[in-house]
Amino acid sequence: MANDDKQFVTEITPQQEDFSRWYIDVIKKADLMDYSPVRGCIVFKPDGFEIWEHIQSELDRRFKETGHRNAYFPMFIPESFFQKEKEHVEGFNPELPWVTEAGGEKLEERLAIRPTSETMIGHMYQKWIQSYRDLPVLINQWANVVRWEKRTLPFLRTSEFLWQEGHTAHETEAEAREETMQMLEIYRDFVENFLAIPVIMGQKTPSEKFAGAVDTYSIEAMMKDGRAVQAGTSHYLGTNFAEAFEIKYLSRDNTQEFVHTTSWGVSTRLIGSMIMVHGDDRGLVLPPKVAPKQVMIIPIGPPKTRDAVVALSDQLFTELKKAGIRVGIDDRADVRPGWKFNEYEMRGIPIRLEIGPRDMENGVCVLVSRISGEKKTVELSNLVAEVKALLEQIHQEMFERAKQFREDHFYSVDTLQEMKDSMEEKRGFTLAGWCGSEACEKKVKEETGATSRNIPFKPAEVKHTCISCGQAAKHTVVFARAY
Amino acid sequence: MANDDKQFVTEITPQQEDFSRWYIDVIKKADLMDYSPVRGCIVFKPDGFEIWEHIQSELDRRFKETGHRNAYFPMFIPESFFQKEKEHVEGFNPELPWVTEAGGEKLEERLAIRPTSETMIGHMYQKWIQSYRDLPVLINQWANVVRWEKRTLPFLRTSEFLWQEGHTAHETEAEAREETMQMLEIYRDFVENFLAIPVIMGQKTPSEKFAGAVDTYSIEAMMKDGRAVQAGTSHYLGTNFAEAFEIKYLSRDNTQEFVHTTSWGVSTRLIGSMIMVHGDDRGLVLPPKVAPKQVMIIPIGPPKTRDAVVALSDQLFTELKKAGIRVGIDDRADVRPGWKFNEYEMRGIPIRLEIGPRDMENGVCVLVSRISGEKKTVELSNLVAEVKALLEQIHQEMFERAKQFREDHFYSVDTLQEMKDSMEEKRGFTLAGWCGSEACEKKVKEETGATSRNIPFKPAEVKHTCISCGQAAKHTVVFARAY
Repeated sequence: MANDDKQFVTEITPQQEDFSRWYIDVIKKADLMDYSPVRGCIVFKPDGFEIWEHIQSELDRRFKETGHRNAYFPMFIPESFFQKEKEHVEGFNPELPWVTEAGGEKLEERLAIRPTSETMIGHMYQKWIQSYRDLPVLINQWANVVRWEKRTLPFLRTSEFLWQEGHTAHETEAEAREETMQMLEIYRDFVENFLAIPVIMGQKTPSEKFAGAVDTYSIEAMMKDGRAVQAGTSHYLGTNFAEAFEIKYLSRDNTQEFVHTTSWGVSTRLIGSMIMVHGDDRGLVLPPKVAPKQVMIIPIGPPKTRDAVVALSDQLFTELKKAGIRVGIDDRADVRPGWKFNEYEMRGIPIRLEIGPRDMENGVCVLVSRISGEKKTVELSNLVAEVKALLEQIHQEMFERAKQFREDHFYSVDTLQEMKDSMEEKRGFTLAGWCGSEACEKKVKEETGATSRNIPFKPAEVKHTCISCGQAAKHTVVFARAY
Repeated sequence: MANDDKQFVTEITPQQEDFSRWYIDVIKKADLMDYSPVRGCIVFKPDGFEIWEHIQSELDRRFKETGHRNAYFPMFIPESFFQKEKEHVEGFNPELPWVTEAGGEKLEERLAIRPTSETMIGHMYQKWIQSYRDLPVLINQWANVVRWEKRTLPFLRTSEFLWQEGHTAHETEAEAREETMQMLEIYRDFVENFLAIPVIMGQKTPSEKFAGAVDTYSIEAMMKDGRAVQAGTSHYLGTNFAEAFEIKYLSRDNTQEFVHTTSWGVSTRLIGSMIMVHGDDRGLVLPPKVAPKQVMIIPIGPPKTRDAVVALSDQLFTELKKAGIRVGIDDRADVRPGWKFNEYEMRGIPIRLEIGPRDMENGVCVLVSRISGEKKTVELSNLVAEVKALLEQIHQEMFERAKQFREDHFYSVDTLQEMKDSMEEKRGFTLAGWCGSEACEKKVKEETGATSRNIPFKPAEVKHTCISCGQAAKHTVVFARAY
C-alpha cells in the first residue's frame, strides 16, 4: 500500500516546484474540468459544475434579498451597439467573436457574442424607463459570456465562461453609488464567509477600471503563489451608458434626466481562485459550504466484520443526508482504505468519516479534517451535531490560514527593486505609494511585472511617496502580479 | 371606473378574433418579455424569467433525484463535428449561426453555436468512457441554444432560447430505452402536475423524429386555438452518435462495444404553451406552482379606515410570506381597486385577496380565484391553510378545464376532408389511421396543414385504415397543426 500511496502522491506536482503545473494536475485529477476541442473553452464536469451551483444558489439568494430580480437578454449584440460607448468598444473590441453568417445567409450587420451586456441592456432600459416611477431597475442575469483571450487558464481565464452580471438604473448618483457599494460588500461577505477567501476591498486605478465605468471597485484575493485574482467587481457607470443609449427619465421636478447606472459581476473564476487559495500538495481543499461532498464515509476493518460495518455506515449515510449534509460513501470491497483516503483527500472533501468494528462496538466513529489532518473520535449518538460543528470549524480554519498566508506575504515597499523582489523571491502583494500618474503606474508594471490591484479602503499603512517618481503619493496602492 | 375598465379590457384582442394577436397582446401587457434588436431573439423580463426559474428548480430536483448531475459544455461547436453524424448535420445545418472571426482574426475552422449538444458531448464522452465501470453516464446541462428560425414567435420559437438537455450513455439498449422512457415520464408528470397542462405521450413518426435519433418520443399539448405544441422530447439515439464519435467501452465480457445514448430536453417553449393553454380574454392565467406571485393582497374601503386596513394587510402579507407563499401587496392609495383587480387578473395571479373594514371587524377576508372568478370568505385565523388549499384547487381546476377543452376538440376522422374541417372550423387534434408510408404522411400535410404529432401510447380508439391511401393502418396517429 505504501508504494501505491507514494506513486499516487507524486502524480501531483508540488506547489513549490511549479505552481501552474500543480494547479493543472489538481483540477484534472480531481475531475473538475476537461479541455474541449475549442480553443480556450473548458468543460465543467459535474464536480466542477456543482461548486458553481452552490455559488449560484447562495449569491442568487443574496441578490433577491436585496431586491434584485433575474432576467435574460440575448447573447448576440449588433456591432453598432459597441460603437455607442467609446471606451467600451476600445476595451472589448479586440476580444470579440463575430457571427457573420446564420441560417445559410451572410448577415447584414455582424453580431458579437456578449463579453458583457451593458450595451444590450442599455438599449432595453431606454425602452423600459420613462419616469422616476420606473426606478430603480434592479436586474441580474446569469449567463455565459465570451472573451477571446490569447492566454487561457482553466476557470481563471477561459474564452467562454459563466457569470452573473447585475445591471441597475437609478435616479441619483448617490443612490447608484450606494448600490455599487452594497454589491461589493455582498461579494466580500460571500467570498469570505462562503468560500473562506479573505479579500482586499478597494477602488481600481483609472487604467484598470472597467471600460466605460466612472469608478470600478474590486475585491482582490491572494493565491498561494502570491499572485492576485480579482474575485469580484462592482462599477459605478455614472451616466456614460445612459448618454450612449439615451436612457432618460422624467424626474420628480418634471425634467428629463439621464439615469445613473451600475453593473457588477462575479464569474467561474471564483472556482479557480478557491482552488489556488486553499489547495495543497495532496490536492484540492474544498470550502465546506461549496464542496459537492462534505463528508465521505469509509468503512474499514477485516472481511469478517465487513457486512456489519457497511450496514452501520449506510445508516450513518442516511442520517447525515437527512440532516442536509452532502455525504458520500465508498464501501467498495476491492479497493483498499489507504487508496480511498488518498483519493478523497486529493478531491478535497472536508471530512472523512472512518468507522471500523471496534468503533462500532464503542458507538463511535472517527472524523478526519482535510485541512488539518486532525482526527476526532465522536459519539454516534451525536454525529450530526459533531459533523456540523466540524464543517464550521474547517471553514474558519481555512479562512484563518488563508488570511495568515496573506499577511505573511504582504510587503510594504519603498523602491521598485524592493517591489520586484517581493514579487519574485518573496511571492506576494506589495503596498506602495502612488502619485496618481499613469506613467508611474506603467513604469511599475514594466519594471516589476506588477499591476495596481486596487486602492484599498483600509490600507494597513499609509504610504507618502510615489514608488516610481518619488513625488508625494496621492494614494496607497496594492500592487501584485495577477492572473 | 367603468369606462377605464372597458378601455383596459379592449386592449387585449379576444382569442376568438385573432388568437395570435391575443397571445402577443397578453405577453407584452403582462410584462413577460420584450422584443430585442436581434432578429428572433427576445428579452425574458423578470416575470417571464421567474416562471422559467420555477420550472428549472422543480425539474432540476427531479433530474437529481433520478441520479443525474449537471455539467456545462462549450457552446461553440467545430464545423467538422456536425459532419460526423449524417442525419444530424442535415437536420441542423440550415439553422446554424457561424462564428467566422474572433479576437481580430479569421478562424481556421468555422464554429457553430450549439443548436443542441450531442456532437460536443459525444466527443467528450469518447474521452471519458473506457469501461463498463464508467457507465452509465447521466449528465444534464442547462444552457442557451440557437436555431436561426425563419418564422419566430416569442417563447414558442425564438432564435436563441433556454433549455435543458440531458445526455446519457449506457451499456445496453434496454437500459438506454428505460432511461428514455423514464425521462419522458418525468416530463409528463411535471407538465401535468406542475404546469397543469394535460399531454399526450407517444412516439414520433420517422419523418418527425430528432435528426440522428433511432426513436423519438414526445409529449404533445393542445393550445386554445387547437394547435399542438411539442412540450418535451426524449430520444433513444441507439449507437448512432457512439459510432460517429467512437464512444466505445470495454464490456463485462472483455469486448469493445459502442455505448447506447439518449438525449432529452424541454425549453422555454413551456412558458409559451402554458400561456396558450390557460390564458383567457382577460389575460394570463398562471398555474399556481410557477406563478411569480401566487396571491395579491388589495386593501379596500374608504380613506378613513385605510390606515387600519393597510396595517392588517401588511400583517397578512408577512404571515403568508413566512408560510412560503409568493405574495404581493398593492396598497397604493392613488390607484382604484377596480383598476388593480383588472391589472392582476390580466397578469394571471391565481388568487386575489381583498380586505376591507367590514372584513376586518369580522376577522375575515375574501379570496377570489383567477380561473373561476369565485369568491370565498375565509377566517383570517385559518388564512394560510385556506390559501394553500385554494392554490391546489386552482391547479386542479386548470388541469381539468384544459383536459375538458382537449377532449372537446379531439376528433376521430376517416377522410382528409374531415381532418381539414377539424383543423379549420373545429380547431383541434385528430386521430387517424396511417399505413406507415412517408408519402401518405406528406399528403396529409399538404392537404390539411396537419403534421403527425405522435403515435400515442394509449389512443382513445384504434383506427384501422390509412386516412390517406385507405390501405390497412399500421398506426393510430394524432395529427394536428403545430407551433
